[in-house]
Amino acid sequence: MSQRIAVVGAGFIGRSWAMVFSKAGHQVTLYDIDPTALAEAMSLLEVNLADLESNGLIHSKDDLLGRIQPFETLEKAIEGANWVQENALENVDVKRELFNRMDKLLPEQTILASSTSAISCSDISKGMKGAGRMVVAHPANPPYLLPIVELSGAPETKIETISRAKDLLEAADMEVITLNKEIKGFVLNRLQVALLNEAFKLVEDGIVSGADLDKTIKHGLGLRWSIMGPMETIDLNAPGGIRDYLERFGPAFETIAKEQSSLRPWDSTRYKKMEEERRRVMSLNDLNKRARWRDRRLMALARHKEESDKHYGK
Amino acid sequence: MSQRIAVVGAGFIGRSWAMVFSKAGHQVTLYDIDPTALAEAMSLLEVNLADLESNGLIHSKDDLLGRIQPFETLEKAIEGANWVQENALENVDVKRELFNRMDKLLPEQTILASSTSAISCSDISKGMKGAGRMVVAHPANPPYLLPIVELSGAPETKIETISRAKDLLEAADMEVITLNKEIKGFVLNRLQVALLNEAFKLVEDGIVSGADLDKTIKHGLGLRWSIMGPMETIDLNAPGGIRDYLERFGPAFETIAKEQSSLRPWDSTRYKKMEEERRRVMSLNDLNKRARWRDRRLMALARHKEESDKHYGK
Repeated sequence: MSQRIAVVGAGFIGRSWAMVFSKAGHQVTLYDIDPTALAEAMSLLEVNLADLESNGLIHSKDDLLGRIQPFETLEKAIEGANWVQENALENVDVKRELFNRMDKLLPEQTILASSTSAISCSDISKGMKGAGRMVVAHPANPPYLLPIVELSGAPETKIETISRAKDLLEAADMEVITLNKEIKGFVLNRLQVALLNEAFKLVEDGIVSGADLDKTIKHGLGLRWSIMGPMETIDLNAPGGIRDYLERFGPAFETIAKEQSSLRPWDSTRYKKMEEERRRVMSLNDLNKRARWRDRRLMALARHKEESDKHYGK
Repeated sequence: MSQRIAVVGAGFIGRSWAMVFSKAGHQVTLYDIDPTALAEAMSLLEVNLADLESNGLIHSKDDLLGRIQPFETLEKAIEGANWVQENALENVDVKRELFNRMDKLLPEQTILASSTSAISCSDISKGMKGAGRMVVAHPANPPYLLPIVELSGAPETKIETISRAKDLLEAADMEVITLNKEIKGFVLNRLQVALLNEAFKLVEDGIVSGADLDKTIKHGLGLRWSIMGPMETIDLNAPGGIRDYLERFGPAFETIAKEQSSLRPWDSTRYKKMEEERRRVMSLNDLNKRARWRDRRLMALARHKEESDKHYGK
């Protein structure tokens, strides 16, 4: 059923959400505090949607674009919305003020969702009258090409809010996970940090080059993990399943985990080293071109997964 | 140029190597200490190769099978080999004895490679006359569907051995990384352990279910990581590249890394919990069927990557 979705903040994440919700058939309103950014957003959307169309991921860019309407005031943009997806600055004061303002303007059944990747739901909704209808819906980057969304509520968030949010996002073809408690960084970035932390150590210690580190994932673990999660992966890697696997490899893995637990600073020395490693592989001037390559590859991969899901099962 | 490759140990990893080397046009000899396993291996190879053929990953199963010859004695199997790929039990004494025996039988230009995932090269080659031509060539599972190979030598391993090994494996369409120093677990499994360790904690702490944990990777990080490594991923996620990214997110990531550094036992409580989580998603009886599904999906993914590499660039 078509709903009215207000996307607040027309940067990259906001625009991605606008495409996701429009693709799902919803009426999308788009707002940005900066009118220039808002106007620019509409032409950037046209480019992205054309790309999606030519890659076979949507039928008609014009249909999708026709359902996205820009508004220069917040009040107009959110009026009548069933769902607000906020993508403002990653600043807790900015977000608190914005959500409190929207909370006063909107009827209580409207869900208020933040895309924040770093701020907890309760840090934003604490003391807000409508804290029960607020949720963090944290997407991956870029959200219009990666379906995952993490739903995380504050202790005050109503269970009903979470289940309605899940339903609406799943109906929009997103893959939703639910966090039962708040945790810093949510799940996706915590998993990323765990892997990066070890990756950086291996590079810093001269065990492998940054280029080889990347190859290990790209031509190894990443392939399995793009069709299965890490738990299913090991469940299928021993005759008796995950427990059998852990009984075989757990003692060795525990020794490795102990070695990995040593703390090392995330500081400018580390950042400089990682930059050197990457710049050996790719010039800074090529980043934009490579980001377009990434998006095309992610589109092709999305199409491939869609077809393979149908052909072989999910 | 066609070489003679001896695959020692005809279990799953050995058979996979036989397919890899045969696909590359080499003459492959296959040996197993157990004659029944050796006979069985030839019919299992036929099934796997038929699968590869019907999935468009090889032209002719009969060609490949025709280049694989079983031998019931080690001496016959390795005679005249340019390369030996060992896949015996993961037991250091077994491997030391086996390599010392082969070292005496083979001329010094033959490369001796072990597929071990848990034993270091120097633990096997220490004191062996031909330690200079020994290397670990650790593949991912399953090696005939995941191209990554980790090359790790002992301090005694000659640089020339590493470079010849790299050349031969790359010519066989494998993606090779080189470890500059020995390290427990090599690179791939250390990265896997780092991620699993955090994944298990999140599940143990009730933050997410095992099913949702897997979704986070499968529909999120795993998609990016199947086309780019983790370093390239973040290099493309900030306007100024990896350093810019780390300057923005590093402080928050360091806080998370500190939280993650707490030690937790890899014990039966953990294994039991993870088994419960997986068995909620999939019955133990369905593991074999699912493993076949995985292999078909990995084949389809390999084909997809091949086509996308051609069309969009690597």
